[in-house]
Amino acid sequence: MSETPFPIAIGADHAGLPLKLVLQQALAEAGHPLLDCGTNATASVDYPDFAHAVCAAVLDGRASFGVLVCGTGIGMSIAATRHAGIRAAVLHSTTEARLTRAHNDANVAAFGARLVGPEVALDALRAFLDTAFEGGRHARRLAKLAPNAIPANG
Amino acid sequence: MSETPFPIAIGADHAGLPLKLVLQQALAEAGHPLLDCGTNATASVDYPDFAHAVCAAVLDGRASFGVLVCGTGIGMSIAATRHAGIRAAVLHSTTEARLTRAHNDANVAAFGARLVGPEVALDALRAFLDTAFEGGRHARRLAKLAPNAIPANG
Repeated sequence: MSETPFPIAIGADHAGLPLKLVLQQALAEAGHPLLDCGTNATASVDYPDFAHAVCAAVLDGRASFGVLVCGTGIGMSIAATRHAGIRAAVLHSTTEARLTRAHNDANVAAFGARLVGPEVALDALRAFLDTAFEGGRHARRLAKLAPNAIPANG
Repeated sequence: MSETPFPIAIGADHAGLPLKLVLQQALAEAGHPLLDCGTNATASVDYPDFAHAVCAAVLDGRASFGVLVCGTGIGMSIAATRHAGIRAAVLHSTTEARLTRAHNDANVAAFGARLVGPEVALDALRAFLDTAFEGGRHARRLAKLAPNAIPANG
């Protein structure tokens, strides 16, 4: 999927499991070392448990990027973005994938297994991993992501 | 857009301004008191400034929901979700809008003005405002959104 096979952490809930299996097979075939944070069963589980495990791996350097899958991708993206240092984007297209890497330096890609099909998700994930952050004015904006940037009378 | 005209805070960056104008006109026509957090000019601005202002209004009760618009919606959703108590969803469809209210109790709707057209965004916003949170197992998952839910060896 990209020239350097950097490590990737992947996780999903029960709704995301089928798409997780597709994505992790493609990542493995592309040579990426994978940190599989589960779930690997169909029993109902709580998506934040898997989001936190994947984010911990990205934040401590075991993984360069994280991939998360749930029904819509939204719950996973919220749980992931709660972590300072994690910027999660729900991807529906290569366009979103390219723009969020270039502009937001997103480091977690989230997918909705009930909303996007595997080929669309695979193309978006490839675009995500192949796009570099542009820096510049976008870096200034990332520095303002912390809530303490709220103006006192905001 | 819904039976009770609860107050809504709205904000956008320069890329989101055209869609913000469409959404705020529709919300006003539906009778919602609006807290306009800007921007209202075409000059380049930093999206987190507007996300933080809208989230502050939701968190202190001046607004029941927040609406944010940037180029993709993703930067806004990341900046908003950094706030404990804010759950932001980027909306591309009525399906996402319905599911994220029902399952994630999302309280901020984010839109990408460069990716979705105004009619699609309006339908999604109406579905968002018209859908109630389901509670139950979904409430248990929301309680796990905080990063301190990371297991020590996660």
